[in-house]
Amino acid sequence: MKACGIVVEYNPFHNGHQLHADQSRTVTNSEIVIAVMSGNFLQRGEPALLPKQERAEMALRSGVDIVFELPYQFAVQHASIFAEGAVKLLDAAGCSSICFGSENGKIEPFIQQLQLEKDQRPELQHKIREQMKLGKSYPAAAAESYKQLFEDQSQLDLAKPNNMLGYQYITAVDVFSDKIKPYTIQRTSSQYHDESLNHSFISSATSIRKKIFEDGVESVKNHVPESTYSVLDKYLGNHGQLLNWSSYWSYIQHILLTNSPSSLERIYEMEEGIQYRLIEAALDSRNFGEFMHKVKTKRYTWTRIQRILTHLLTTTTKEEMQSNHSPAYLRMLGMNAKGREYLNLYKNDFTLPIISNLNRNHHEQCAIDIRAGRAYAMGYSNPIKRQEMIVKDFKSAPVII
Amino acid sequence: MKACGIVVEYNPFHNGHQLHADQSRTVTNSEIVIAVMSGNFLQRGEPALLPKQERAEMALRSGVDIVFELPYQFAVQHASIFAEGAVKLLDAAGCSSICFGSENGKIEPFIQQLQLEKDQRPELQHKIREQMKLGKSYPAAAAESYKQLFEDQSQLDLAKPNNMLGYQYITAVDVFSDKIKPYTIQRTSSQYHDESLNHSFISSATSIRKKIFEDGVESVKNHVPESTYSVLDKYLGNHGQLLNWSSYWSYIQHILLTNSPSSLERIYEMEEGIQYRLIEAALDSRNFGEFMHKVKTKRYTWTRIQRILTHLLTTTTKEEMQSNHSPAYLRMLGMNAKGREYLNLYKNDFTLPIISNLNRNHHEQCAIDIRAGRAYAMGYSNPIKRQEMIVKDFKSAPVII
Repeated sequence: MKACGIVVEYNPFHNGHQLHADQSRTVTNSEIVIAVMSGNFLQRGEPALLPKQERAEMALRSGVDIVFELPYQFAVQHASIFAEGAVKLLDAAGCSSICFGSENGKIEPFIQQLQLEKDQRPELQHKIREQMKLGKSYPAAAAESYKQLFEDQSQLDLAKPNNMLGYQYITAVDVFSDKIKPYTIQRTSSQYHDESLNHSFISSATSIRKKIFEDGVESVKNHVPESTYSVLDKYLGNHGQLLNWSSYWSYIQHILLTNSPSSLERIYEMEEGIQYRLIEAALDSRNFGEFMHKVKTKRYTWTRIQRILTHLLTTTTKEEMQSNHSPAYLRMLGMNAKGREYLNLYKNDFTLPIISNLNRNHHEQCAIDIRAGRAYAMGYSNPIKRQEMIVKDFKSAPVII
Repeated sequence: MKACGIVVEYNPFHNGHQLHADQSRTVTNSEIVIAVMSGNFLQRGEPALLPKQERAEMALRSGVDIVFELPYQFAVQHASIFAEGAVKLLDAAGCSSICFGSENGKIEPFIQQLQLEKDQRPELQHKIREQMKLGKSYPAAAAESYKQLFEDQSQLDLAKPNNMLGYQYITAVDVFSDKIKPYTIQRTSSQYHDESLNHSFISSATSIRKKIFEDGVESVKNHVPESTYSVLDKYLGNHGQLLNWSSYWSYIQHILLTNSPSSLERIYEMEEGIQYRLIEAALDSRNFGEFMHKVKTKRYTWTRIQRILTHLLTTTTKEEMQSNHSPAYLRMLGMNAKGREYLNLYKNDFTLPIISNLNRNHHEQCAIDIRAGRAYAMGYSNPIKRQEMIVKDFKSAPVII
């Protein structure tokens, strides 16, 4: 049985994700699609709408065969570390291919770009450093440097966000996997950042979330797969709340107002004295939106600040992040019958152990994920739901479809 | 003008406090009564019902002439450090007497007890250590040791809470003041811990708070001075909320679930691995009451745990508490016309500087108090009231009656 790996966040699972999963199976000629998915906190430094278990269920009910969790220390990260963690997990789980969506839609320009970069890496790094000295953020500096160096030779437009992310997968595969072959499919319609829910078949996750918070879950019924709608609707009925940064604002404000700048400095990614800026803004903001608009600059992007705040909320320190270089386990969030068959056949060949049910033995390995689950739980205003969520990581078995 | 000092918390100011202030003036034959009052957090490790400025106003409108704030590092402390801070401030402000309420009601037994203790200090300390080895809390061990050593010779029953607290004032005066003469008046009627609001003239602060949270401010109207009722009523109308530990439970739970035991150990009074016990209870409690009942033991008294939680909420560390041995300023919360006259006459003789309006120059000195004020603000669920309270320490001028 051939398995294709995909890297996802599903916040929430939508029609574009459905298409991506289906096409990945087809173009790679695989029987199995394995998704590596961010847990309760996402790459752009945001709490997910609903927990990882429910997001895995959406995907499994729409045809994905197995969902593993991308641990926090790879998920809430720059694209390069995110890609490295995901590729290592897919490799460990026996995938022979990876398939990602990109604006470009063809794999050759990615391969060619990788060769160009390998040939000119010192020049590239020099250029990026120069651009950052001008006050640009890393993503902006990298995009500008790629453009200056490779524009004439490359067919790949790395200013497009999904081309850039895909290129990180290509790079990670090149370094960390001997057996994975990369594929890409054309990303259609909505851009990630699109905020309006249009009438096309595929709406962006951003526009779907916005619509849900403005008009309720019912309003997106026709824009998402049935599985997504029913999981969202049931979850909201049971828990009374979907989560976003607003639910965590008071915790962030409390931390910033009661900790010294030097103690805040031990938090991962808290660099260049940005904690002084965060404290000043926290003293003078009534909600998360006000706070973010006070903090954001050209250099400190929205995403970078959100990631810092996520580490602050979960008390994730530089010290512990520096001691985690490679994934140590495959945390199984769920599977369908075909996924189970694949696992039974091949799991002995996996190069990482599978964790299906968390127990005390896993404390050490999964410490950050467990803590992130508990921090996530604090977003519920209902103390009973909060309590359920605090123990959820330990009580949840994988979702079986 | 002779000034008498009193040490108070006023949570809230009630008829017994009124009697105490009036009698203190009479028995010491003073023109001025100066109160040193705990700030937003109290000696027993609790957030006050309402901020220090409003509590000072209640007292000033009932005849107290000047209110100074007892800084956090002396207020949220064992009785001996609490008494030391208060006596040093009263001495610095020129008081020639101190007057406290006690169950005993006569000063001679206190003086005699002090002499007895001075003569037998090593034996006393040895006994207290022995009692603590049996698992007793410090207050219980001290009470038992005093009883065993001095019962036959002393007329003072130190098992009575106000006798014990008064005895701390006597001890502090003996060590830290040459000019203060101690007086005591008989404490009548309700004990501090009484929870039922009875029909006598004097109701305990505990019973008044309980009644307010159960039945609203209106229900205590006839049990408190008019000034207290009107300040409470107005404050509640403006802020929609009086504060207690329930308002801070989610912050405590968040801190306990996202910090490592070793990082919690830097918090003041976090000793003997009690952080493990706190974390375990936080994982399994839906509210503050449940949590406290899980944590409390014979050795870890309710008060001791609450003080630890207050330090946790304000991130007050062992390191900073150890570096603060003596009050550095007199923070003026308010005064009446007579208080102002006294100040104009004598403030040049004061041995500590007066801070009336906080500004950037005071940051270093008042760092813990400013932080405590901000932590206190986080208890308001309304983000606009929270914001007002965050800056209140800087924006408030002293209350002038």
